[in-house]
Amino acid sequence: QTAEYTMDGMTFGMPEAEVFTEDYDGPPVVGEYVTLLPNLKPLDYEGNKHHEVRIDILVQEIEVAEGVRYRAWTFGGTVPGPVLHVKEGDRITFTMKNRSDEEVTITEPSKGGSPFMQQVAENTYQKNKSAIMPMPHSMDFHAGTVAKDDKWRTIGPGESIKFDWIANYAGSYIYHCGTPSVLMHTAMGQHGVVVVSPKDGYPTDYEVDREYVVVQSEYYLEKGPGELYQYDFEGASNRQPSHVVFNGHQTIMHDQPLKANAGERVRFHFSNNGPSGTSSFHVIGGIFDRVWLEGHPFNEMRGMQTVLVGASGSATLDMIVPEEGKYILIDHEFADAELGATGTLKAGPR
Amino acid sequence: QTAEYTMDGMTFGMPEAEVFTEDYDGPPVVGEYVTLLPNLKPLDYEGNKHHEVRIDILVQEIEVAEGVRYRAWTFGGTVPGPVLHVKEGDRITFTMKNRSDEEVTITEPSKGGSPFMQQVAENTYQKNKSAIMPMPHSMDFHAGTVAKDDKWRTIGPGESIKFDWIANYAGSYIYHCGTPSVLMHTAMGQHGVVVVSPKDGYPTDYEVDREYVVVQSEYYLEKGPGELYQYDFEGASNRQPSHVVFNGHQTIMHDQPLKANAGERVRFHFSNNGPSGTSSFHVIGGIFDRVWLEGHPFNEMRGMQTVLVGASGSATLDMIVPEEGKYILIDHEFADAELGATGTLKAGPR
Amino acid sequence: QTAEYTMDGMTFGMPEAEVFTEDYDGPPVVGEYVTLLPNLKPLDYEGNKHHEVRIDILVQEIEVAEGVRYRAWTFGGTVPGPVLHVKEGDRITFTMKNRSDEEVTITEPSKGGSPFMQQVAENTYQKNKSAIMPMPHSMDFHAGTVAKDDKWRTIGPGESIKFDWIANYAGSYIYHCGTPSVLMHTAMGQHGVVVVSPKDGYPTDYEVDREYVVVQSEYYLEKGPGELYQYDFEGASNRQPSHVVFNGHQTIMHDQPLKANAGERVRFHFSNNGPSGTSSFHVIGGIFDRVWLEGHPFNEMRGMQTVLVGASGSATLDMIVPEEGKYILIDHEFADAELGATGTLKAGPR
Ligand SMILES: [Cu+2]
Ligand SMILES: [Cu+2]
Ligand SMILES: [Cu+2]
Ligand SMILES: [Cu+2]
Ligand SMILES: [Cu+2]
Ligand SMILES: [Cu+2]
Ligand code: NA
Ligand code: NA
Ligand code: NA
Ligand code: NA
Ligand code: NA
Ligand code: NA
Ligand SMILES: [Zn+2]
Ligand SMILES: [Zn+2]
Ligand SMILES: [Zn+2]
Ligand SMILES: [Zn+2]
Ligand SMILES: [Zn+2]
Ligand SMILES: [Zn+2]
Ligand SMILES: [Zn+2]
Ligand SMILES: [Zn+2]
Ligand SMILES: [Zn+2]
Repeated sequence: QTAEYTMDGMTFGMPEAEVFTEDYDGPPVVGEYVTLLPNLKPLDYEGNKHHEVRIDILVQEIEVAEGVRYRAWTFGGTVPGPVLHVKEGDRITFTMKNRSDEEVTITEPSKGGSPFMQQVAENTYQKNKSAIMPMPHSMDFHAGTVAKDDKWRTIGPGESIKFDWIANYAGSYIYHCGTPSVLMHTAMGQHGVVVVSPKDGYPTDYEVDREYVVVQSEYYLEKGPGELYQYDFEGASNRQPSHVVFNGHQTIMHDQPLKANAGERVRFHFSNNGPSGTSSFHVIGGIFDRVWLEGHPFNEMRGMQTVLVGASGSATLDMIVPEEGKYILIDHEFADAELGATGTLKAGPR
Repeated sequence: QTAEYTMDGMTFGMPEAEVFTEDYDGPPVVGEYVTLLPNLKPLDYEGNKHHEVRIDILVQEIEVAEGVRYRAWTFGGTVPGPVLHVKEGDRITFTMKNRSDEEVTITEPSKGGSPFMQQVAENTYQKNKSAIMPMPHSMDFHAGTVAKDDKWRTIGPGESIKFDWIANYAGSYIYHCGTPSVLMHTAMGQHGVVVVSPKDGYPTDYEVDREYVVVQSEYYLEKGPGELYQYDFEGASNRQPSHVVFNGHQTIMHDQPLKANAGERVRFHFSNNGPSGTSSFHVIGGIFDRVWLEGHPFNEMRGMQTVLVGASGSATLDMIVPEEGKYILIDHEFADAELGATGTLKAGPR
Repeated sequence: QTAEYTMDGMTFGMPEAEVFTEDYDGPPVVGEYVTLLPNLKPLDYEGNKHHEVRIDILVQEIEVAEGVRYRAWTFGGTVPGPVLHVKEGDRITFTMKNRSDEEVTITEPSKGGSPFMQQVAENTYQKNKSAIMPMPHSMDFHAGTVAKDDKWRTIGPGESIKFDWIANYAGSYIYHCGTPSVLMHTAMGQHGVVVVSPKDGYPTDYEVDREYVVVQSEYYLEKGPGELYQYDFEGASNRQPSHVVFNGHQTIMHDQPLKANAGERVRFHFSNNGPSGTSSFHVIGGIFDRVWLEGHPFNEMRGMQTVLVGASGSATLDMIVPEEGKYILIDHEFADAELGATGTLKAGPR
């Protein structure tokens, strides 16, 4: 194991991951800065923080579109999983139990859970039902810089893993299951986002009125033998998704529009979680005033109608809301928009 | 309605769009700075200008490849539609009549029309025949920053719409019909480009010898019951275009090559109008000396062999023409090049 | 022919290419700075150099995955072809003989050949067998700035071509056959990389411990009538590759991992040679500390988890190796990763 060291102001060399069993039946998501999409918990602390975070693996039957339900493999119970917000330089001690062999209910408030637990209980937009499908899984945080054969190790049902990582680089990062087939595990629902805010911020921070996290992802589903949908191997292999969605559900961002007012600066933390497609992200009626590719403040662009984001790529985007009315977030690859990659931003008066 | 206001030197809050009927049978394209691809009208004025522009919706039977004709839904009669050139900060009062229920001939010179009308009459490379297919349509200018439920409203055959917008951000922008299915309306031909020149220019402006507008787009066509081709729903859904072309026609840029001389700096205003594909834009024999992503002068890159442009993305690209001979514009995603995404730049002596 | 001239410190106007026949049966790859993937020969000279380089066209039966062999059209005998390393401003006199009508063995050391010849004899990871398939071919160096109808001319079996070009722009560049169908010729194996190091270097050069060249490309193969695979026209047209690989072979970068140590800065010269797909290039466990899009030092980005590279696009990427263990290079478009676009970087102790 490489001993901890610093280089260019960053910290590398994390202790070996621990794989163990624990008698845990508490809330599956723990951590003060962990929220339900599209929320982002503001960072209310100075300097760096050591976060203790838990996101357990759960199987949940969820709705991803009107009339389309499947048994999802999830981090924390939703697809995408919870949003973790930390600051550049923060250390995270992460614990995860593979509870794919357990029925875990996430629709009721729990004690000691993260804001995510409260938010999902109040707004279970995927209409969760707990389910069981015991499977080995793992966790790969793109925000972490560690050896994958150690930290991203696969654990069996009933096992837990615990490891540290440092958020060395600012930006928005996907996390996902890294167990083969990664195509299937990610498509089945095991992905989410970590937002690492830069320690010196972005130049427009003081003007930002609202922040939202928006995740694009594809589902590859076909009708199963019963009422549920199931994974479509051929569709996934051929890059022919059945649904391309924002925040895990085909119509959620129309049913529950993002809100803002005319004249405000809205910031989107956008992540394209794939598993395979690109996104030509655009907001109908708006132009991105500032864009930071991958969310890193060094990578600034201005005046972009559309930002092309690869699979597991991201961007932080500021938009001035021009006037009262409706704006539509969209993957401007229109074949994908037709499969659901659209959402609404509703702007009130100035 | 949000009252007009300025922010960061830009103007937002446009008056409500007017939908009305008018007894208009004049030229379908009006405006001094509106041209036929690949032309761009130089901006010959100081400061900002208030443009009055009309681009009517017409149905036209056109040729998109040798032996391939279909009944196109168009802005102004061609696919892509006319190029509008304005300056950062300009105001545009835009009028559009949905004349999809009317036969409108664009192959004869008209009085009071834009340069586009003259140019298309002289060079009807899509071999237009007027046609009728009454349908609701709309206009979405990516260069505008307005509420889409107001300005991008759908109007029926015989209706007109009029609204103002400000070109707040420099760059090249797609415009297109925003009426569902946007995939179909855009693929059927309803898209074009607005070039918004930066008020302080690009750093190499004084060295530029020629400027061309090049639009890439996909057609999804299959043989119809008669001699005409028709929209291929399945091809469009599955991202399997029948033709991928520059400036609306499979061979136009070989039949009518762009021209330059060795030693000149040529500027391309490139827009990938999709509706779904990406473009890996390259010129065989050349390297892009400067690239401004989305056409915004802040987003400068240098020394690029290939620029990846998403659907509804753009780039402004300078290339030094090395020597006399032929250069080929190409989408280097070669499956798309095989479907037609190639064109010629013919260089004369130095 | 345009006479040689300089502009902005670059040189254009190369003498006309010579097409001729020669009685040559020496090593098919000649040049001091020409290597086998993933090697890059360090530039050990000051100022600029005039390189004499030969890369002949050979047909070789090769293995691209366990049990998958086909008769490849190659530059120099491997797929991708040899890596050429030069410096910004260098002149290259390039000679190429179309030896597709000749059996040429590359698995034995040769006199007067480039380091590539030695390296491939020592490590014939594609298990080459010489073969014959007489065909016209050509060479298109993206790093060159010349008229394609002159320098990129197609030559028949037994013919040779010779021309000069100048590496005017720093960066990593694909080279490939430009003979129609370019989709087929490139997919059949005719592509490689030229690395043009910037004359003033990259800002982190003094910290770089190792450099590797990694090329992504797609194969479109189906079982032929005998034991060999053959080109799949339909797969290539429909962008459905059979294999997506790094350095020409589905498992080579696992069988022969790249090597580094914890705490080192590793530089990847990454080129996506297509012919059609994009790559969302990522290293599992790492974050790119610095990225130069297209390899040009002006185009710097920082802190990127994933870099989206178009077809015939490239990037130069620095990564700090965090700790001992395994890291996986991957096209994070997971449908492509499943087809083979993965490789290993094995990190030793600090
Ligand atoms: Cu998993
Ligand atoms: Cu649009
Ligand atoms: Cu329309
Ligand atoms: Cu090329
Ligand atoms: Cu060839
Ligand atoms: Cu990943
Ligand atoms: Na990582
Ligand atoms: Na997409
Ligand atoms: Na807009
Ligand atoms: Na394309
Ligand atoms: Na070139
Ligand atoms: Na790919
Ligand atoms: Zn601590
Ligand atoms: Zn998993
Ligand atoms: Zn998309
Ligand atoms: Zn006015
Ligand atoms: Zn329409
Ligand atoms: Zn393309
Ligand atoms: Zn010389
Ligand atoms: Zn060839
Ligand atoms: Zn890919």
